[in-house]
Amino acid sequence: MPGAALISARCAKKSIRGYKLPSPIITFLSDFGTKDGYPGCVKGVIKSLAPEAEVIDITHDITAFDIKSAAYTILNYVNCFPKGTIHLAVVDPTVGSERKAILIETEGVVFIGPDNGLFSYVYKPSKSRVYRIHRLLYAEKNIDPTFHARDIFGPAVALTANGQHDKVRGEILKNISLLEQPVKSENQNTFKLNCLTIDHFGNIISNLNKNELSLLGIKKINQIKVRDKVFHTINNFYSEKKKGEWLVLWNSLGFLEIAVSEGSAAELLKFDANRDNIYIDVNLS
Amino acid sequence: MPGAALISARCAKKSIRGYKLPSPIITFLSDFGTKDGYPGCVKGVIKSLAPEAEVIDITHDITAFDIKSAAYTILNYVNCFPKGTIHLAVVDPTVGSERKAILIETEGVVFIGPDNGLFSYVYKPSKSRVYRIHRLLYAEKNIDPTFHARDIFGPAVALTANGQHDKVRGEILKNISLLEQPVKSENQNTFKLNCLTIDHFGNIISNLNKNELSLLGIKKINQIKVRDKVFHTINNFYSEKKKGEWLVLWNSLGFLEIAVSEGSAAELLKFDANRDNIYIDVNLS
Amino acid sequence: MPGAALISARCAKKSIRGYKLPSPIITFLSDFGTKDGYPGCVKGVIKSLAPEAEVIDITHDITAFDIKSAAYTILNYVNCFPKGTIHLAVVDPTVGSERKAILIETEGVVFIGPDNGLFSYVYKPSKSRVYRIHRLLYAEKNIDPTFHARDIFGPAVALTANGQHDKVRGEILKNISLLEQPVKSENQNTFKLNCLTIDHFGNIISNLNKNELSLLGIKKINQIKVRDKVFHTINNFYSEKKKGEWLVLWNSLGFLEIAVSEGSAAELLKFDANRDNIYIDVNLS
Repeated sequence: MPGAALISARCAKKSIRGYKLPSPIITFLSDFGTKDGYPGCVKGVIKSLAPEAEVIDITHDITAFDIKSAAYTILNYVNCFPKGTIHLAVVDPTVGSERKAILIETEGVVFIGPDNGLFSYVYKPSKSRVYRIHRLLYAEKNIDPTFHARDIFGPAVALTANGQHDKVRGEILKNISLLEQPVKSENQNTFKLNCLTIDHFGNIISNLNKNELSLLGIKKINQIKVRDKVFHTINNFYSEKKKGEWLVLWNSLGFLEIAVSEGSAAELLKFDANRDNIYIDVNLS
Repeated sequence: MPGAALISARCAKKSIRGYKLPSPIITFLSDFGTKDGYPGCVKGVIKSLAPEAEVIDITHDITAFDIKSAAYTILNYVNCFPKGTIHLAVVDPTVGSERKAILIETEGVVFIGPDNGLFSYVYKPSKSRVYRIHRLLYAEKNIDPTFHARDIFGPAVALTANGQHDKVRGEILKNISLLEQPVKSENQNTFKLNCLTIDHFGNIISNLNKNELSLLGIKKINQIKVRDKVFHTINNFYSEKKKGEWLVLWNSLGFLEIAVSEGSAAELLKFDANRDNIYIDVNLS
Repeated sequence: MPGAALISARCAKKSIRGYKLPSPIITFLSDFGTKDGYPGCVKGVIKSLAPEAEVIDITHDITAFDIKSAAYTILNYVNCFPKGTIHLAVVDPTVGSERKAILIETEGVVFIGPDNGLFSYVYKPSKSRVYRIHRLLYAEKNIDPTFHARDIFGPAVALTANGQHDKVRGEILKNISLLEQPVKSENQNTFKLNCLTIDHFGNIISNLNKNELSLLGIKKINQIKVRDKVFHTINNFYSEKKKGEWLVLWNSLGFLEIAVSEGSAAELLKFDANRDNIYIDVNLS
């Protein structure tokens, strides 16, 4: 946007539903990689429109098009930021199609991005308000069908940081697109888990959360099986095991995780997140 | 620089040719990678000399020594930032040799880095003013022949952010080093294109820009050929095709690009950016 | 930390032993990678507690669990930052075990992280003051045994930035854990060097520093040998050699380094940092 005028930032400190930050904080996650300069461009657009905002990179190394992994990753940082933070997340394989651009406000925190399941784990039906981002502001502009992060999401983030909510929030939506990631009952006492993501250290993170145990009627986990590995205990932390030893633990978000102390479980098992499963044998309550 | 005095930042908000930012914005691109801490060091030098400046990382993942790819990448973000921004770019295979250190000012935007072709696509002969960065400031210091980003470019950026232009700008230069990337006529109706870069998603970006079509006398593109793939239409966006399908499109900067919907064209073609070409058959006007 | 109160930042500009910065600068190095959002989370915790602090990413691409490489990398940026900077570094294979959480203050600069050798090269026995980070502040909280960066180090950094030193500094420690990386005498005139790290460009960095030569009684280096390569001269900079040619040089930190001009020495030699050594033949003084 050559010659883009600096929109007044007078209102930069306006609150998001009453939460005030000394200056607006924006987080930014994508699958763009950094080498092409695309995240840089989006940061430039935001700084052009909201000069006082601070953009904090989360990552641009989400596996290309991996919405499921991104949805999980958002959980890893969303609660670490103060109320009033605006979270921009863009993993957008169907950019340019009819998928919606949305803004979600949940308990003083704002999420902006494409409506494709990315916000599945932070959307709370009873507490979230969802808006379609309207195109009024951009109606006269030539929006690039391949780069909505620059042309729609970035400006929406900046204007929200400025408190210019009316320019961003269009139609109220009753629901959003959600990923389907249910823990499935395989038979009477066995559940089949999916892999949400393999983290940087090669830990395999399943879709079973400690919080769901009672909902699923699980009283006790007797055995965890992944490929040829069988476990009978759940550890508390990595260093309870010696270097190279295997363990299962509830990770810091409460998800069941397969790990190797100071090693990569996924690599050693040749675990494929899209194909392989984890099985647990349980006592039901 | 232990004990480096904090140079007064009183003038931090001085304008670059009249453009004022609330605080100076500096972007930073390099091929350093981050794992060695080299970009961190340069950011420290800048913050030491210009504490109010904000340094925004673009990328440090440019392929080592790939000036051509970096020159293209700069186009991806330069116009997203407001006037007054200072763009630091360092891909510098001949650091320590006689290549010059330069500052380019073009329409209220400043570029700082080595004079080796890196600024080929943002240099505008009629609108750019080019200065050799003078070494007066560093005359007494022991400049490391292998790390000019820390010892020359970083300080030049910081002092420019402070408005201390006289300390940075030396001799005016009449021209800069330019990359040679012409679109070549192969025969009457065929042009041979080079690959500027392969982006993070594996898209193959050619050196043909939509803007050049009339200059080249091209009225219509009938066929695009890359390795064994032949295309007869140019699409508008990725999602016009189903996952895994091939397409050619004009990308958001106007360059002709070969892509696979939700896939990597370069990987599937085993395309080598340094060896392979793209051929187009055209109607001339 | 949902609902975390914003601790008053009134004291954000308090000095660290008298050094004042316009706003607190925090650097952050880890082996977390960015793709899981862990560094993002830590940045959120810091911004929640110290909203005026600026967190500057150094890298999160340290090889997983590679304390030695991280300890060297810290040297690459620590002296580039102004006095008063707080350096957070977390490579922490034994997180959750009995290893201590420490704060080191050395000549107006603060380091925070695990006590596992990470700070070996910046710790100066006669000039450093070392504190165990006390848990008083967190006594009532449920500290996650696997994520001290979020639960202990991040808050310690933020409170230090706020000048709330009493909340962070516990017991004074007399020493810290140190890496053992001695240059070993192989026989009368030969020394055996280790590899500290292989940098982004594939340069092999040894543990021999120019400053140590007189301590080791080395008057002249006659020959450097690494795998099948033998060198008899030490160059000043990379571009003294043509593309693809080998060289040995003292790098910008004074360490002896094996390099290939515009190429990767480590890749060409298939050099293994954990197994291979560099041998030097010398004249003793």
